[in-house]
Formats: sequence, structure tokens, C-alpha cells
Amino acid sequence: MNKQTFFTPGPAALYPTVAQHIQSALDKQIPSISHRSKVFQDIYKQTYHNIRTIFKLPDDYAVLFTGSATEVWERMLQNCVETESFHLVNGAFSKRFADFAQLMGKTAHLHEVPFGEGFDMAKVDIPSTAEMICVAHNETSAGVSTPVDDIHALKDQHPDKLLVVDMVSSAPLPLLDFNKIDAAYFSVQKAFGMPAGLGVWLVNKRCLDKAKKLEAKGQATGAHYRLVNLWKSFEKFQTPPTPNVLGIYLLGKVSEDMLNQGIDQIRHETEVKANLLYNALSNPTIFKGFSPFVANHQHRSASVIVANTPGSAAEFIAKVGQHHMTIGSGYGKYKDAQIRIANFPATSVAQIEQLIETMTQCL
Amino acid sequence: MNKQTFFTPGPAALYPTVAQHIQSALDKQIPSISHRSKVFQDIYKQTYHNIRTIFKLPDDYAVLFTGSATEVWERMLQNCVETESFHLVNGAFSKRFADFAQLMGKTAHLHEVPFGEGFDMAKVDIPSTAEMICVAHNETSAGVSTPVDDIHALKDQHPDKLLVVDMVSSAPLPLLDFNKIDAAYFSVQKAFGMPAGLGVWLVNKRCLDKAKKLEAKGQATGAHYRLVNLWKSFEKFQTPPTPNVLGIYLLGKVSEDMLNQGIDQIRHETEVKANLLYNALSNPTIFKGFSPFVANHQHRSASVIVANTPGSAAEFIAKVGQHHMTIGSGYGKYKDAQIRIANFPATSVAQIEQLIETMTQCL
Repeated sequence: MNKQTFFTPGPAALYPTVAQHIQSALDKQIPSISHRSKVFQDIYKQTYHNIRTIFKLPDDYAVLFTGSATEVWERMLQNCVETESFHLVNGAFSKRFADFAQLMGKTAHLHEVPFGEGFDMAKVDIPSTAEMICVAHNETSAGVSTPVDDIHALKDQHPDKLLVVDMVSSAPLPLLDFNKIDAAYFSVQKAFGMPAGLGVWLVNKRCLDKAKKLEAKGQATGAHYRLVNLWKSFEKFQTPPTPNVLGIYLLGKVSEDMLNQGIDQIRHETEVKANLLYNALSNPTIFKGFSPFVANHQHRSASVIVANTPGSAAEFIAKVGQHHMTIGSGYGKYKDAQIRIANFPATSVAQIEQLIETMTQCL
Repeated sequence: MNKQTFFTPGPAALYPTVAQHIQSALDKQIPSISHRSKVFQDIYKQTYHNIRTIFKLPDDYAVLFTGSATEVWERMLQNCVETESFHLVNGAFSKRFADFAQLMGKTAHLHEVPFGEGFDMAKVDIPSTAEMICVAHNETSAGVSTPVDDIHALKDQHPDKLLVVDMVSSAPLPLLDFNKIDAAYFSVQKAFGMPAGLGVWLVNKRCLDKAKKLEAKGQATGAHYRLVNLWKSFEKFQTPPTPNVLGIYLLGKVSEDMLNQGIDQIRHETEVKANLLYNALSNPTIFKGFSPFVANHQHRSASVIVANTPGSAAEFIAKVGQHHMTIGSGYGKYKDAQIRIANFPATSVAQIEQLIETMTQCL
């Protein structure tokens, strides 16, 4: 059977070393070890250290695990917001975070821009009553990125508020300064190239202190997955429930491989590959009728490239698929009018060049 | 490296076919497929049908997925209890469910018996105001089982209340009549012998209707993992967030293997193996000073056998471990005074016989 190469924005291509790490996990019987054993604590500790190194996390940060990244939306809202949150909305996922705030009885303030656009931060007015600012570094639905400097500036302007960054489809790529943010989250099936089923929550002590303050006021912050409870377990490199042990092990191994390869090198290659894709899709003599969806170059995502298609996106995707390459469809109502191409570390420069070559044959 | 055989009550020994199913999942690129694709829907559908067949689920049951079984505690409380829950407590896990109810602002009524004892149902007084009755079929911490007839009788006596059964460390073994209960939950790293990281929530339409009713009243029932939302996705064999796709695939395959082997045969072998263990540990001429912890034979768990040890449990466990067999320690304060032996389908009659033989050599 010919294998497909996946350029989908998640689940995505597995990082090249994942299969061998799964095999070694089975050889070492990792799925059978107790999650209360020292062996597990050592796995968690190693994963924490690797993640900490990749993201340059300050001392006051914990690395916690949930079932999915979007579950972190719920946990942040339960644990760190008493009444009001503020959401920069530029696509389906940043919108859903705001929807969840409302579902959970909070007042969600929105600054919303049209699909495909980024934010002009000068126009963003954040009410003084908002306790938490939520922004997506990379909005997966639209392929729009918020420049890290703009994210850092939010903190400079609002040091009293918690700043939470969605890195679901960009971690570990953006050079975020974690001294300037309070929490971030991602899922492992995107740029880390792992099987889905593990959410990663990077969260600092300011968030923990907020949760403690709200609990003291009588707010129900959850049960097993209360931030206070997760953090307490983290201090022993444990988790309150039995976690996805295999996932935590694989994340440690893949992070180690990325560190060995060099995270700066991975970031550099991501830029190279993104430029190849954007340049190709902007070239009217080859990709006639195609165009990058995001007009402003500053807001173009490096990890999820979205392009308008001249005809049916589904037909184009099917043609490309016959060459054993899978690219993603547009999101929601753009399903048949756009393609989305994941540019994650699992795929090489050569594979992106091959994809572009293949796509030209499918026009 | 000599592999250990795990007789621990979770995480536990992998079901013998798991490694090959993981390999075939990698060959078929299951971790890279879209969770919105027909391929995924077919996997979910097949897993649902196999689980439905094993448990003889009625038509009005959904099979939903969470990150862990204990997460279901939170979801049941959020979605199906307005003010009051009732908990039959006979160990650490049934107690924690009640604690969670209180943490989440509910009034939790408890009927608690000493650790190691089961319930005399004639003495259980359930207030008419309780909306939900929570009972563990198998209390993993103490090795105490609640007979299925006693569970069914709770429904006969309280048909108006939701009846929720913890099957974490016994599913798929107990012959529960799902017409007599409203929800049950388990995790896959116990008797299904899979890697941890997936909770399974079997839940009927009465629970869904209750969640809808509470939402209509304005109760915050969660966000992505609201029962109403999970159920809506289930109807399309999808999940709201990206789920543990590999876990759902493996659960379908392991359930299929169990159905092929014959679930009645598995249940029969479980009884045979449990009898071997209880008989051995009750034999004072061989296991001098050992004794089954649960005195009442009717309340002895078939899947988690707990025994008092004459000396340090840790030392005995270490000795057995040198023979490449891992048994569990007692729970909490019984850590060094008891052993816990998982009797799950992954281990054969021959392996249990070998374990007993090995344990006699370690006395």
C-alpha cells in the first residue's frame, strides 16, 4: 500500500521518529507501568524539561496535560475568570473560545475582524473589567497569525490581566516570550506530529494564584482537572487521573528529537517552506486563479497556509490525493473554495517542493 | 530484556493483540487521518457497535469518549445533577466521586461502609430529593464488588432517579442489564488492556433529557464536553474536539477480539482465575498469614483481588518482581499491608497459575 504524505492541519503527518518511539515504548512496556511509579515521574519530568527548554519557560511555569487543547478553554475559564473575559476573534476557533465563555456563564467581550484578516492592535479596545485576554497565535481555520510582538504588546499595555495564547497549530514554532504571557496551550497532533489525544497546557503561577483566589471566594473550578489540583500533582510529576502515559512519553521523545535537530533550525526551515508555498500560490503564471487567502504578509501563518482555489477545492484535493499527498480543505463555508496546507516540522523542504510540483501537475 | 507480566489494577498488562493493532494502525496511517473524515466515522461506528454488542446496550444508549473515566464524574455532575446526588461509598474512588460533587457545588448524600465491606442494601436509605444514585460495581481501591442484582434492585426501588455505575476496573466483565441503569463508565487501561488516555461513557437518553432540562433552566453544563454536544456529535459518529483517534481504533479492535474469543468465555475464565487466586490466598498451609481482604464472598471482586499480607507488602511485591511478575500494592494507608492482583482478560489461566506458583516461592 502506498502511504499518503499528510499536509493536513491536524491530525497531520507523524513526526518521522514517532513510529520507532512507539515501538520502543512497547518494548519498555510503558503502557503498563503505574502512573504513580518513579518510572512515570521520570517520564513526566523529562518531558517537562524538554518542553521547558523548547519554549524557554520561566521558573514559575507548569506543564500540565488534558485530553485535548480545546479542553484547556474550559479549564482556563473555570479556573481563571470570575466574570469577564476578552477575546480577539479572527476565525472559528478563537470565536468558539468566546462562545464557551458565554456557555459557562461568563461575560465574553469580543473584538472580531473578518475571516482572513489579522488585528490592527491600535483598534483593539480592552475593557478594564476584563480579567483575561485570549488571543490565537495561529488561527487554524483562516491561516492567520498574530505577530508575537503584537502579543507581547498586549501584556505591556495590560500587565494586570492574564494573557492566554492559543498555539494549537503553531507550537513549537513561534518565538513567544513566556515572561510576557501567562498561559498557552496546544495539541500534539499538529506541529509536534503525534497521535491525537493529549492537550498541553503551559501555565504560570499568576493563573494558579487567580484560581486559588476564586476558590476562596467559593467559585466551582472543577474537580480532578482543577488547576490547583493539576498543579499540586505536577509538583510531584504526577497527574490527578491516569493520564495518556504513552502520549506524555512520546511528547518527551519528539521534543528531544526536535532539540537535537535544533529548534532554531526547525524554525528556519519552517520559514523556508512557508515562503516556497506562498510564492508558488502567488504565481499567476503557474497557479492561475489561486491566491493566498491572507492578504497582509505580516498576518500570514507560517504553519497553516490557506489559499483560494479557482474551482472546486474538493476536486483539486482529490487530484493531488491520487499522487499520495493529502492536503486539507477550507474551513466551514470555505470548504470547497479554499485549500489548507500544513507546514509542520514533520515534512521536509524536499517534501514541500515535491508537493508544489505535484500540485502544478494537478491544475 | 525480560519483560514483566503485569497483574496490576491499572495501568495493566496489554491485551495480547494490542501491539499488532498499533502496528496496523501505523501502517494504515490512522493517527494522521482527519477526525472529520468518513474513515474516522467508520472507526467510531465500528467501535460503538462492538461495545454495544459486548454490553448489550439498548437503542437509547450513546457511547461517548473523554480523556479519562474519572472525567466522567465531572461530566455527569455538571450535566445530570441540579442540586443533589447520592453516593454509595465503599472505598477511595466512590468517595472521591462524592467529594467532586461537593467541590462542584452539589449536595452529596453518602451511605458509607468501612473499607473492605460491601453494602447491605436493606440499610441504604436514599432521600427522595436525590437526582442521581452513584455506585461502583467494582471499587478498585478495596477490591469490593457490588453484585449486579443489588444494582438492578436500586433501579426497581428508585425508577425516577438516574442510576450511574462505575465499571472502571471491571468492564466488560459484569453482566449488567443496561435497561436497569442510566449510565456507566470505564477506562481502557484496566480490563480492556489498552494504553491509558481514553475514558468511555455509556449513557442513555434519560441522562441527555436531564441535561437538556438543566440547560433550559440556565445551568452551566460545560462547553465542548457538554453531554448535549457530545451526543449531537455521536449521532454523526464524530466528537466535538479532536479525540484520541488511535485509542478509539484500538478499543474497536480489542472489543472485536473479545467478541471473537467469546465474551461469555472471557467471563467464565475470569471466574476460574479469581477462584484460583482466592483459594490460594485463603490456604493457610501455603499462604501463611495471607488472607483475602474482603470477608464476604458475595462482595469479593473477580477482577481486583486484594489480600492482607503477613509482613511488608512492598518486600513481597519486590520478591515477586524479581520473577518478572508485577503485582499491585494496597491502596492508600494499606500500601504496605496489602497486595492487589488484577485479574483481567489480558492474562490467561496459565499465567495466573504461574503467578500463584511464583508467589509461593517468594514466601
